Amino acid sequence: MFEKNNNAIDIKDRTIITTEGLSGSKKLYIVGSQQDIRVPFRKIILTDTPNDDSKLPGEQNAPVYVYDTSGIYTDATATIDIRKGLPAIRKRWIDARDDTEELSNYSSEFTREQETTLVNIPLFKHNRRPLRAQAGKNVSQIHYARQNIITPEMEYIAIRENICRTEAVTENSLPEGFDTYITPEFIRKEVAEGRAIIPANINHPEVEPMIIGRNFLVKINANIGNSSTTSSVEEEIEKMIWGIRWGGDTVMDLSTGKHIHQTREWIIRNSPVPIGTVPLYQALEKVNGIVENLTWEIFFDTLIEQAEQGVDYFTIHAGIRLAHIPLTANRTTGIVSRGGSIMVAWCLAHHKESFIYTHFEDICDIMQSYDISFSLGDGLRPGSQADANDAAQFAELITLGELAKVAWRHDVQVMIEGPGHVGMHQIKKNMDMQLKYCHEAPFYTLGPLVTDIAPGYDHITSGIGAAMIGWLGTAMLCYVTPKEHLGLPNKDDVKVGIITYKLAAHAADLAKGHPGSDIRDNAISKARFEFRWEDQFNLGLDPDTARKYHDETLPKPSAKVAHFCSMCGPKFCSMKISHEVKKAFAKKSEEFKSGGSKIYL
Amino acid sequence: MFEKNNNAIDIKDRTIITTEGLSGSKKLYIVGSQQDIRVPFRKIILTDTPNDDSKLPGEQNAPVYVYDTSGIYTDATATIDIRKGLPAIRKRWIDARDDTEELSNYSSEFTREQETTLVNIPLFKHNRRPLRAQAGKNVSQIHYARQNIITPEMEYIAIRENICRTEAVTENSLPEGFDTYITPEFIRKEVAEGRAIIPANINHPEVEPMIIGRNFLVKINANIGNSSTTSSVEEEIEKMIWGIRWGGDTVMDLSTGKHIHQTREWIIRNSPVPIGTVPLYQALEKVNGIVENLTWEIFFDTLIEQAEQGVDYFTIHAGIRLAHIPLTANRTTGIVSRGGSIMVAWCLAHHKESFIYTHFEDICDIMQSYDISFSLGDGLRPGSQADANDAAQFAELITLGELAKVAWRHDVQVMIEGPGHVGMHQIKKNMDMQLKYCHEAPFYTLGPLVTDIAPGYDHITSGIGAAMIGWLGTAMLCYVTPKEHLGLPNKDDVKVGIITYKLAAHAADLAKGHPGSDIRDNAISKARFEFRWEDQFNLGLDPDTARKYHDETLPKPSAKVAHFCSMCGPKFCSMKISHEVKKAFAKKSEEFKSGGSKIYL
Repeated sequence: MFEKNNNAIDIKDRTIITTEGLSGSKKLYIVGSQQDIRVPFRKIILTDTPNDDSKLPGEQNAPVYVYDTSGIYTDATATIDIRKGLPAIRKRWIDARDDTEELSNYSSEFTREQETTLVNIPLFKHNRRPLRAQAGKNVSQIHYARQNIITPEMEYIAIRENICRTEAVTENSLPEGFDTYITPEFIRKEVAEGRAIIPANINHPEVEPMIIGRNFLVKINANIGNSSTTSSVEEEIEKMIWGIRWGGDTVMDLSTGKHIHQTREWIIRNSPVPIGTVPLYQALEKVNGIVENLTWEIFFDTLIEQAEQGVDYFTIHAGIRLAHIPLTANRTTGIVSRGGSIMVAWCLAHHKESFIYTHFEDICDIMQSYDISFSLGDGLRPGSQADANDAAQFAELITLGELAKVAWRHDVQVMIEGPGHVGMHQIKKNMDMQLKYCHEAPFYTLGPLVTDIAPGYDHITSGIGAAMIGWLGTAMLCYVTPKEHLGLPNKDDVKVGIITYKLAAHAADLAKGHPGSDIRDNAISKARFEFRWEDQFNLGLDPDTARKYHDETLPKPSAKVAHFCSMCGPKFCSMKISHEVKKAFAKKSEEFKSGGSKIYL
Repeated sequence: MFEKNNNAIDIKDRTIITTEGLSGSKKLYIVGSQQDIRVPFRKIILTDTPNDDSKLPGEQNAPVYVYDTSGIYTDATATIDIRKGLPAIRKRWIDARDDTEELSNYSSEFTREQETTLVNIPLFKHNRRPLRAQAGKNVSQIHYARQNIITPEMEYIAIRENICRTEAVTENSLPEGFDTYITPEFIRKEVAEGRAIIPANINHPEVEPMIIGRNFLVKINANIGNSSTTSSVEEEIEKMIWGIRWGGDTVMDLSTGKHIHQTREWIIRNSPVPIGTVPLYQALEKVNGIVENLTWEIFFDTLIEQAEQGVDYFTIHAGIRLAHIPLTANRTTGIVSRGGSIMVAWCLAHHKESFIYTHFEDICDIMQSYDISFSLGDGLRPGSQADANDAAQFAELITLGELAKVAWRHDVQVMIEGPGHVGMHQIKKNMDMQLKYCHEAPFYTLGPLVTDIAPGYDHITSGIGAAMIGWLGTAMLCYVTPKEHLGLPNKDDVKVGIITYKLAAHAADLAKGHPGSDIRDNAISKARFEFRWEDQFNLGLDPDTARKYHDETLPKPSAKVAHFCSMCGPKFCSMKISHEVKKAFAKKSEEFKSGGSKIYL
């Protein structure tokens, strides 16, 4: 812990950072067309299938390669120093495009103040200056894509999306037959046409590029936020590392309160995944929580502040319009989006359209100058089954679709946020409406929760809806923890939320028939059938919990090779009997053939 | 604990039986057309919505009535004595039909032996003799239904299924307008036509009648089983009570090992929900686990043994045919049903069709003599995504459909078991095939699990599939706990499994548009919006966990009336702002009208 309240500027204890690799896995990289395109993946190493004749060698089981979001924290060969931050793997790519300029100082007035104010959160010691697009330039990936430029980010992503597609991936080489898989050109086209986004701020060169779009693996987002009681910088960074360890593809920092500027800097410098924020929260802090006092100027300065820190996507609640507000008047749960409620309150207080809506094109200018993606917030999402798919929700969705077109006109990347609380029978309409009115911009939903009656289990009520809407085409699923509606998630809750969403996203990939998504399922099922317990644990999304559950009843090492588990015991193990059946059937089959192939019975 | 190994025959400690009522609820009964039709339900009592002017009374919130599976254990007025068992509420109804006879002794040889053998499990002290249909009589509910007889069981169920339909239900009276809801005649018709079953053995007069069919509330089953290390009779009974407390509509006793006869008797005598078993497990115990030694005679005696104890439905793996076996040869996970693997092994060992298949009509005779329902087991269900919807699975399903027709010809009730492991995109086909080939007999599925890669979280992978297949028409969902594939569930696992399935079943009811199913969702959402925290907890499926989660961060009693929670804090609470918005909007609306209704902006 660094000392509090004494202007400490260094970090003294990094023991709370989780760095070991995942059980049974090796972290490796595929190198692309240039040496600094090094795409991480995880190789799950499997044991052999034992031969019935124990003197003979067993059948080899090919390793399983999986997409890896965990950054260098799970790389045993990496040197991790959170004081220095992660290596700036994209810096050379950004510099090579020669369309940015280094600023001599931060453009945000607030940032400049913070840089000279010592608080009880240490400042991150920078070794880079902030970047901004050169005057008249647009540095967004969609802009390049539309110029027919394939960026290193796009190539990186093509390799990354192929990892789960093939067992043919080999260490440190492009897989053979690579062009039969997802190509860099396909990435370019999807981005150019707005069906996918690559959230990658030029001031976040540490990010390992990833893509959000419905023709790719379904992604998940994990939220983190400071907690007023327990915060330390290490703990905030560890939250992010913990989230990506279990599979968070992006992390939203929803912190509120004092000194979030400093904490955010620490998080971004150490984050290999895109960071999203809701800048409105910080803007509201700056006016001491008094909604009426919010102004475009304060909001603008906050956008610039966060843009130059490297935030990769902004949730912007620009779809709230005056005309929508009456539509919420008779709702059961009113407005449940924090950002939405703030903007509605502002609109009513000032009696005019929100400054976010009226300044939308100004915001586009910022987005294209740093390559920040829009996540157009659904401020009027339903907060209950009673309000699902109502007029307010869809009115806002149509506005979001109009704004997506505006963003695209500025060559700015955009995705659309979605609900919320929606019964299973109403989910498809959400996806249909989004595709229709938002012109295939990627959809990013929170759940949806398919019933309201299970507080304490809303990771599950929402995981059901998430899996379904992911199948139907949602590109990214925002996780929900068991504490939803009740309180602040702890570390265990975050993990349960992420694993729930990871399995929902994977179930969606399977249902979509995403090529290669069944490899891991098939490998774990084979391991299960062959009583390769360690392989079964290691192939799971959470090897530690699987092993712990197994060991609760059969802790001895010998049980890890036993041909049964404690559920049914040896006598009733269907898989054990099934193996005997298989052998007996093979024997019968032989007899049948040698007996002249007469049908038995 | 009763003493072990010394022929103890009494139970000395009942402190482990959970008997208190659920938080914020009152257990009540509706009386039907005769005084002994007393249908239980739970009344969740809500607080008032506080008035902004605290001097004025608040708005009253109507109580919410919910279906209650928990038996008299949650009735504060009931006397519970597990040594005596539950009151035989159906006895008078069964006797009044005058089609049964009391037997002077048990028909099963095995039972007669057990009755005279003292073991370390005490015998339940009976005060009734076993019943059987009089010669030539059929005592099944489907038989009565087809004779146009509305039984008290049917009336009971009609009242029970209506409880969630209406706020108009009043204490101790039929709700007004009752005939606009589910009528006893509708129950009769559904049973007569085979679309629903009422599992209610004449030797289980303690059962509170319930129905399984797709035009009713989706039901869930919880499995229990003895554990060889920790068993005591009280613990086994407590497992059942714990399961129904949280919403198990039926309980399957999957115990194996010694003395399960005695334990089962204790469970049935104390169970207000139908008990299902897989008689094959016990039959296999009787031949010391040697599959080849299984015979029809041993199986028959086991059916009779369990029939006279009062088991309400039997899983019977009659769909395994010789011709299906080769279809499983190349499966990834072979045969994963215990019963299925046993019967396949038997068929191969003896080179003939299973005695369960060849004696199916003899089994029907037993079923109709005690009113036991078939749960036709899916011995060839897929155990992995790789095997989902394969030829073996559907070949067996078609056989099960043929057998359902045979059962119906004998006026025997029947439901069909279903998978297993099935991706989201393959779920609908399962339901379509089942409806088509099984002629609308109720479907009873295990999950299905929509991916294989999350051991430790298979309550969730399967909860997703369960919710979906429930929506599509499955009548009962067999729960899965977090320990699935790994080990024996403990009490917490059982609860998590049940709550997960309860929310999945409810989500299915909502999606089906089942009348009244949204009342509880709407009430909890209103409570949430009005910061009535205690009401929110009490309306949830698991008030204890919701309260515990809330209190982890805000434990003080004052927080239970606070207009925020720890997730967002007071300044960022969208619901708080939303209330202010609502008021502000009402004001604006007034101004608008008084200003001549000119549009603002």
